[in-house]
Amino acid sequence: MPSPTFSAATAIFEQMQTEVTHALQAIDPTVQLTEDRWDRPDLSGTPGGGGRTRVFSAGSVFEKGGVNFSNVHGLLPAALAQQMLGRAEDVPFSATGTSIVIHPYSPMVPTVHANFRYFEIAGDQWFGGGADLTPYVLNTGDAHAFHATWRGICAAHDESYYPRFKTWCDEYFYLPHRGEHRGIGGIFFDYIGRGESGAALEKLLAFVRDAALGFKEAYIPIVERRRHDPWTADMKRFQLIRRGRYVEFNLLYDRGTHFGLKSHGRTESILMSLPPEVHWVYDYRPRPNTFESTLIEALTHPRDWLVSSPA
Amino acid sequence: MPSPTFSAATAIFEQMQTEVTHALQAIDPTVQLTEDRWDRPDLSGTPGGGGRTRVFSAGSVFEKGGVNFSNVHGLLPAALAQQMLGRAEDVPFSATGTSIVIHPYSPMVPTVHANFRYFEIAGDQWFGGGADLTPYVLNTGDAHAFHATWRGICAAHDESYYPRFKTWCDEYFYLPHRGEHRGIGGIFFDYIGRGESGAALEKLLAFVRDAALGFKEAYIPIVERRRHDPWTADMKRFQLIRRGRYVEFNLLYDRGTHFGLKSHGRTESILMSLPPEVHWVYDYRPRPNTFESTLIEALTHPRDWLVSSPA
Repeated sequence: MPSPTFSAATAIFEQMQTEVTHALQAIDPTVQLTEDRWDRPDLSGTPGGGGRTRVFSAGSVFEKGGVNFSNVHGLLPAALAQQMLGRAEDVPFSATGTSIVIHPYSPMVPTVHANFRYFEIAGDQWFGGGADLTPYVLNTGDAHAFHATWRGICAAHDESYYPRFKTWCDEYFYLPHRGEHRGIGGIFFDYIGRGESGAALEKLLAFVRDAALGFKEAYIPIVERRRHDPWTADMKRFQLIRRGRYVEFNLLYDRGTHFGLKSHGRTESILMSLPPEVHWVYDYRPRPNTFESTLIEALTHPRDWLVSSPA
Repeated sequence: MPSPTFSAATAIFEQMQTEVTHALQAIDPTVQLTEDRWDRPDLSGTPGGGGRTRVFSAGSVFEKGGVNFSNVHGLLPAALAQQMLGRAEDVPFSATGTSIVIHPYSPMVPTVHANFRYFEIAGDQWFGGGADLTPYVLNTGDAHAFHATWRGICAAHDESYYPRFKTWCDEYFYLPHRGEHRGIGGIFFDYIGRGESGAALEKLLAFVRDAALGFKEAYIPIVERRRHDPWTADMKRFQLIRRGRYVEFNLLYDRGTHFGLKSHGRTESILMSLPPEVHWVYDYRPRPNTFESTLIEALTHPRDWLVSSPA
């Protein structure tokens, strides 16, 4: 039997999937939607839950995207249990969450990622997740607005959340081999709620509800503002190269990707995060004082996007 | 002072770089060659050797490729020493090698990878390396020829090498999340020569010399045979999707890529292996009895390419 918190979290993540699906279709009625419901066999071949993957493709706004709900359970392999819990044995677990990655066609519209999840393992539990923006042509007003939305959602629950989760996001989405952050951040948290119960866990659940259901208001207005902006071939080329950094982060470092692949998750649902078209160019370096160098400066030195008024 | 074996290995790998560079230029005189000589700062900022990276791009045959020589030394970080040697402390090391990855433009010409390297660490030493072929449109005659060349090079030194190294290659270049091997194999070996000295080490050095300098004869004739073959838009599309699997292997699993990035190697030299243009398409599945399904069958079930005569 799922715990009451697990059931409540599942309902929130299903609602998030439904609402985001409708919001994307409303903006881009031409986008193709493929839905796959899948079952996950556990290690021993017994049923291990499943999910509902929704992949968007070939839209006029959204080139590729995924809005994936999952609710899985089973035995966590010992190697993963060791890494996550310091226990070198197979451990029963349940996990539910919704993951979103959206790659717009236009380089003026940022890529976005959001994921909210809840784990129960070995008598303990935690929430993880966040949302972060990856622009190709930096618009400081959009960056400000994205962060301001998350600050508002956080502050309604705890004044300490936004500063902690903003910093955590900058630290997590970092590519050491490039000396760059993946994007201009947002919020990120993991393992919150371990050892908690009662009101403390209720408080986290209420925050995660508002964050998951608030994702739309953080991202959709940016799409609306940028979707008709003109762009140049140089901007498109830069987007295709920068998407390579996105792939590098997800395959080299992303905890969720590695967890999914190692825990026998559904490969096509996990790797929906990879962009539709990517270029790798040897030793690409932007010239100074260009839109490229402006972006890379922002990715190299994370900023407090809320300290000044938007441009 | 480098050991005599280290000096000899270095000379072989520099010769391999020179000869392969000339062979690629001879086939594709229009290809652009960018050479970067680089120095590697060690952990403490002291000199740590360096290398000579040669990147080929925008050729009529070779869309992107790298032929990279390196000769580096310094302190191996404790985390890597633990992983490689089971010793959780910084350990002095020297390493030299040449790495090659070539991505042709035409889907009829296979991608190839070769790498031969020599390590000295903490009073011990070993050789590693190999060469493997990644076709997009399978030609069984080419697969036979590639393997036959490696069997010949191996057998001149030790009858046991080819069977062992062929199997090792199939096992190493495997993507568990796809249930597929990266290509149709070749040879792969690692950590050979540990604890050896004298004649045993000489024998391995002689084998690695013939393998490194024999790479040209394993690959170049295939390029010559396939470069003018006609191809369809479906074949090009398939190549771009399959290149995604190449990226997935290199970033998720490849030992050399992870070693390079974690040991403060030169990022652009390491990631020259990534293809110039890549597509990710959600849940791509080839129809039965097509050139796509024929290839995937070969990647799913490794074959003994030498058991039957070529097609």
